[in-house]
Amino acid sequence: MFNTQLFHKLKRGPQVVVLKDAAIVSAFTGLQSGDRVIDCGAGSGFLAIYLGSLVAPSGRVYSYERREEFAALAAKNVEKASLASVVEVKTKDAANGFEEKEADLVTLDCGDSPLLLEHAFAALKKEGYCIGFLPNVEQVKAFAEKASEVGFKLLATHRLVDEEWLIRPQGCRPENTGLMHTSFLCFLRK
Amino acid sequence: MFNTQLFHKLKRGPQVVVLKDAAIVSAFTGLQSGDRVIDCGAGSGFLAIYLGSLVAPSGRVYSYERREEFAALAAKNVEKASLASVVEVKTKDAANGFEEKEADLVTLDCGDSPLLLEHAFAALKKEGYCIGFLPNVEQVKAFAEKASEVGFKLLATHRLVDEEWLIRPQGCRPENTGLMHTSFLCFLRK
Amino acid sequence: MFNTQLFHKLKRGPQVVVLKDAAIVSAFTGLQSGDRVIDCGAGSGFLAIYLGSLVAPSGRVYSYERREEFAALAAKNVEKASLASVVEVKTKDAANGFEEKEADLVTLDCGDSPLLLEHAFAALKKEGYCIGFLPNVEQVKAFAEKASEVGFKLLATHRLVDEEWLIRPQGCRPENTGLMHTSFLCFLRK
Amino acid sequence: MFNTQLFHKLKRGPQVVVLKDAAIVSAFTGLQSGDRVIDCGAGSGFLAIYLGSLVAPSGRVYSYERREEFAALAAKNVEKASLASVVEVKTKDAANGFEEKEADLVTLDCGDSPLLLEHAFAALKKEGYCIGFLPNVEQVKAFAEKASEVGFKLLATHRLVDEEWLIRPQGCRPENTGLMHTSFLCFLRK
Repeated sequence: MFNTQLFHKLKRGPQVVVLKDAAIVSAFTGLQSGDRVIDCGAGSGFLAIYLGSLVAPSGRVYSYERREEFAALAAKNVEKASLASVVEVKTKDAANGFEEKEADLVTLDCGDSPLLLEHAFAALKKEGYCIGFLPNVEQVKAFAEKASEVGFKLLATHRLVDEEWLIRPQGCRPENTGLMHTSFLCFLRK
Repeated sequence: MFNTQLFHKLKRGPQVVVLKDAAIVSAFTGLQSGDRVIDCGAGSGFLAIYLGSLVAPSGRVYSYERREEFAALAAKNVEKASLASVVEVKTKDAANGFEEKEADLVTLDCGDSPLLLEHAFAALKKEGYCIGFLPNVEQVKAFAEKASEVGFKLLATHRLVDEEWLIRPQGCRPENTGLMHTSFLCFLRK
Repeated sequence: MFNTQLFHKLKRGPQVVVLKDAAIVSAFTGLQSGDRVIDCGAGSGFLAIYLGSLVAPSGRVYSYERREEFAALAAKNVEKASLASVVEVKTKDAANGFEEKEADLVTLDCGDSPLLLEHAFAALKKEGYCIGFLPNVEQVKAFAEKASEVGFKLLATHRLVDEEWLIRPQGCRPENTGLMHTSFLCFLRK
Repeated sequence: MFNTQLFHKLKRGPQVVVLKDAAIVSAFTGLQSGDRVIDCGAGSGFLAIYLGSLVAPSGRVYSYERREEFAALAAKNVEKASLASVVEVKTKDAANGFEEKEADLVTLDCGDSPLLLEHAFAALKKEGYCIGFLPNVEQVKAFAEKASEVGFKLLATHRLVDEEWLIRPQGCRPENTGLMHTSFLCFLRK
């Protein structure tokens, strides 16, 4: 088992991908041990670490991050998660393309995701998946349109709402307040 | 990559665990390649197959099912998923206990889940996880109460709502109708 | 038009019924000008004021509150809403029954709602509605069971989730955090 | 009480506004007996009827519908609801403007809602409300942008999800499937 409690202890810089969204990425695509993933941008490295725990020990996650301070934070978190041999944080701007080929999955979680779709298509193997994390509806639309142009098949777009429940002797109910929205997840296939 | 399209082709008998719920099980617990899982009951085998794809090749899923016809269906689906070396379907009533020890995870998705908690506790290794899939609130409460008695720590109870979106040139919106409820997921730790 | 901006200015004591829940009460029952309503407990008086705005000028809302300080607050808020001729706050314990007969609607939003169902049934006219506001599932169940015993017909139980959206030039999305749960609304008919 | 059971018996042509959405319109705006409302388009007349029940007996609802067969259906439904003295169905294209002035509320539920905003602004009294029912996000955005140009203040945009619960001796849970999306409601004020 990968120690998921670790996520509560890792340092957080830029906004992190939450559990429910990371989970659906792997379940939807069938990601498993041995697979090769490209992740962009790394942010605090949480998604890369979770995906790394699934593809370990023989798979790899290449996590691109152009901002140096975030790349350093992500690399530190990867090390704390004992996944340095699986997850490689690359301090590079993906606008110039990804260095890997025949990847099983590309995850895009950055402001210019639509601009990276051509590079993602080139880096993926046949039938490989590409998933965009997009906060706003307009971004989903631009992402899906560009994906079609590039040659991707648009599979589906999901938004997950995670309702936490209080289960107590004095009564059971959903928590009163909570996280209502993180991102839309847009699933593509080459 | 495990071929998740397969789930659309496998034969369905009893109600199957849906993607969003299977996903959160693995993400919450940190399940990965090499882990050992006990799953009860097998039903159509979908959860066992998904968990099997994650723990493969060296891990194992032991999936208990007392009704012979469902066990046969689950075993057939496991074979179609090429996971026969990872997932073992056992035609046995778990009421008599699980045969494995030091498991990383026990998933309980059957009518008498609370009655199996003592057996689950005995079969788990220290800090192992047990997760109940429970359609009704009363079942969650009974499950959580029994879990405390048995010695489990109640971590959290979640209900996931999966909203599918239509992304189209003529307009973006959630699907009008959909699956609003499957199960509450109750997370325990030894 | 009733000035709903007023709700933002009224003093709040005990938890107030939120807009989405008050709205569905009137829409479900068909409450309109001239109707007679019994409301218990008054709390800060917000539900009584909203219902009062609908039944005015010829209808009446009788709002029971046993705690003196809350009754005083509710009465003050009713006055600020210029509804003193429509909404009467009664500093009384409803456990002894309601003083009105032939009411169109009884709303119950207090800890001992199931114990008041007999009184509600007696106070309602034929085909009148009774609605319980209940935070926990167990309370809904106890309320519904008692309601059947007393002679009510259980119509439906609803939980409304109100998603507020940000509509901005830079992108549209749901608010990130928000109110996920207030109460279950249990609708009964005599 | 207005007989809401009637809605189950009225004939349905074009898509009807559902209860939860009609409810929030009145609660948000403070609509009450005596108010004057412009509604466009009438569709099957359900929203006009509900609003009519609230503004009766002295208020008025003017419901515009350019398609003759729908206008006839709406008028028939209004008559069945005994609201012919309150709700007037007008077989007219609102593109030429509304004939009323100093209205308290304008509800817009038609394909060309943004094009009607200028007419809505002209027909409303100071501080009057205008509410758009818009299925797609792009429509909400276009509606909100045009509303600003015309001089409206954008108050808020809501999407209501109505979860129906099964309350049964054998267990309580949300209905498995249901209506996940109807419309976004965009609230404006003059």
